[in-house]
Amino acid sequence: MSVTAAMGFAAGGSACGIKAGGGPDLAIVTTETRGPVPAAGVFTLNLAQAAPVQVSRKHLHDAHATAVVLSSGNANAATGEQGRADALRMAELTALGLGCDTTDVLVCSTGLIGYPMPMYALESGIPVLAAKLNGSTAAANAILTTDSVSKEAVVSIEGTNAVIGGMAKGAAMLMPSMATMLAVLTTDAEVDPSTLQTALTRAVDLSFNQLCVDACTSTNDTVLVLASGASGAGITNRNEFHALTDALTEVCSSLAEQMARDAEGASKLARITIRGARSDSQARLAARSVARSQLVQCSLNGEDPYWGRVLSELGVSGAIFDPESVDISFNGIVCCRNGIAAAHDAVALAGAMTERDIHIECTLNAGNGRASVLFTDLSHAYIDENRGTS
Amino acid sequence: MSVTAAMGFAAGGSACGIKAGGGPDLAIVTTETRGPVPAAGVFTLNLAQAAPVQVSRKHLHDAHATAVVLSSGNANAATGEQGRADALRMAELTALGLGCDTTDVLVCSTGLIGYPMPMYALESGIPVLAAKLNGSTAAANAILTTDSVSKEAVVSIEGTNAVIGGMAKGAAMLMPSMATMLAVLTTDAEVDPSTLQTALTRAVDLSFNQLCVDACTSTNDTVLVLASGASGAGITNRNEFHALTDALTEVCSSLAEQMARDAEGASKLARITIRGARSDSQARLAARSVARSQLVQCSLNGEDPYWGRVLSELGVSGAIFDPESVDISFNGIVCCRNGIAAAHDAVALAGAMTERDIHIECTLNAGNGRASVLFTDLSHAYIDENRGTS
Repeated sequence: MSVTAAMGFAAGGSACGIKAGGGPDLAIVTTETRGPVPAAGVFTLNLAQAAPVQVSRKHLHDAHATAVVLSSGNANAATGEQGRADALRMAELTALGLGCDTTDVLVCSTGLIGYPMPMYALESGIPVLAAKLNGSTAAANAILTTDSVSKEAVVSIEGTNAVIGGMAKGAAMLMPSMATMLAVLTTDAEVDPSTLQTALTRAVDLSFNQLCVDACTSTNDTVLVLASGASGAGITNRNEFHALTDALTEVCSSLAEQMARDAEGASKLARITIRGARSDSQARLAARSVARSQLVQCSLNGEDPYWGRVLSELGVSGAIFDPESVDISFNGIVCCRNGIAAAHDAVALAGAMTERDIHIECTLNAGNGRASVLFTDLSHAYIDENRGTS
Repeated sequence: MSVTAAMGFAAGGSACGIKAGGGPDLAIVTTETRGPVPAAGVFTLNLAQAAPVQVSRKHLHDAHATAVVLSSGNANAATGEQGRADALRMAELTALGLGCDTTDVLVCSTGLIGYPMPMYALESGIPVLAAKLNGSTAAANAILTTDSVSKEAVVSIEGTNAVIGGMAKGAAMLMPSMATMLAVLTTDAEVDPSTLQTALTRAVDLSFNQLCVDACTSTNDTVLVLASGASGAGITNRNEFHALTDALTEVCSSLAEQMARDAEGASKLARITIRGARSDSQARLAARSVARSQLVQCSLNGEDPYWGRVLSELGVSGAIFDPESVDISFNGIVCCRNGIAAAHDAVALAGAMTERDIHIECTLNAGNGRASVLFTDLSHAYIDENRGTS
């Protein structure tokens, strides 16, 4: 279901020949009416934006869209003028196939950076797929690169009969070589474009942006949402807006966690929670600093509760606090209190570290700021998967 | 020679029992007169500063010092009030042994974070060593943790009869679990403290700060220099200042490169050079972004010239440039021009990537800013060395 769970949408996926191995590599999501509906997007902040990102931003300028065409295997990034022409041609082919305007088609691609798109595959593949949309499961599979499972989620918007469905490909620590995370969400709520954009930005901030993945800043990262209005459930007042935002956040969080769990190279799924920072943004600085630390990631891989490394990363994060007021725990067992070693049950802690899910909690005692980031350990498999790709 | 190459200094090293294995773990460097001389220091910017860093900063407040006592195996970091008392006691024991003031003794420690110093070892070890300084080679060996070789360098100050000698322990990517880099330099030039500090700060900026090591921001990083004046060569005019700075930079650069080359976990020594950035500081942002990228490090490990990853890291570095004006080369072979793939001899490039030293050069075509950073690849050995330590 996922991306067609909301009324008013159709989707499909196929193998058109981008991937050398012949796997599914092309997907389309469209409104059933083939007419434009309110749409919103969040894109990578990378200065080196892939061609499809450039085209999608342009086509989303009027805050409406009819369809999204997605390809996997080639990122169409660092491809210059030809890349933009190719991404635009993908939109045009999709528009021709569906019977809508080219400027109402958004484009997403993921895969290797720096290679021209194999347009011969898309020239024949898009018309065939557009003519026969075979469902959301096929679509969710066709956007994957080296993911081992597809990522889908559906959530109801509380107090309404509308739902939000979504699919993603994700790249967590599992295969950032293939770069990028993509997510396409649909809802049948009736919502104006600016409200939709506000809700999406907030939801992404509370979900995907709390996942520490290399892909956070790749050339292709894109999250899109289209709102058909087909349920007739309007989002007009403050409560409805909050219900929409909450539901979007829940879908995005589910997809983000599915990404982290699918991290092939990883043996641990870790969460770092910072409390008591001066502000939420300082807490986020601190959480990201720990999450991106190769040393902390190595310790997790070795199931070593080395809190000294966590403290050291907090100290260089840019957050302001007194290092001698910090408490640190692993899976609930406090091993550092007031910045120095705390007596604890070492056997219980060693046992806790063998779990797949590790929760590191740090209290800075400097304010009320709070943040949480999901990450993984650093393993041999991560290196093996990323050492050769071109 | 190294740290005693400059006239007026004595040094020694011993095994006092901090390291469980019985290896050398205690060193002292002192003026031969046992009187204070101009001294300068550069310390970690980590908010969580180890106790010896706190004590050394305090003792360097008058910009003079007589001696440095260094221990390895325990970082005396995250040890709170007791840690400060222990570091101060190390200074006091050294002062008693040498016959100088406690406040003229600087303290450096490296090793594991979060464990109390084994003071029983130092209470007996420092007096014995202070009474019989057995030379700079013993000192250079005693400050190592998991380094495989000691790091020493000696350079003459051009146009004078003065020299600068130095020793370091370093931590590059090889064993940041044992955290921290330390360096102690001595010179027999006659130089006032503020000139010495200015020269050291500049030299560190051009050497150690261009090495991308986790230790850059550890709890214990310290670089110290003491100037005996014993050569009678004064540093009084602009030319002499530049000669001093150049010589300091040369010593520090040599020690930094020795650290990177000793990176046990690494199979590649890489340099990223950015040219044509808007400013030197933007160039440095860009260089660091590439150097710290796990993905770029994995590519190097696999000898894969994946320039797309380099471009993507440049794009998120914060430097401002046009991605479609960027050129990238590996060991002189240009594989990306104007932000897209450039025709090149693939066989020659594959051959170049098998070398141990890899030079990645990026031209941003946005200005005249320039920077260069030394780093290493990411290997299985790095993970193995860092996954368990506590």
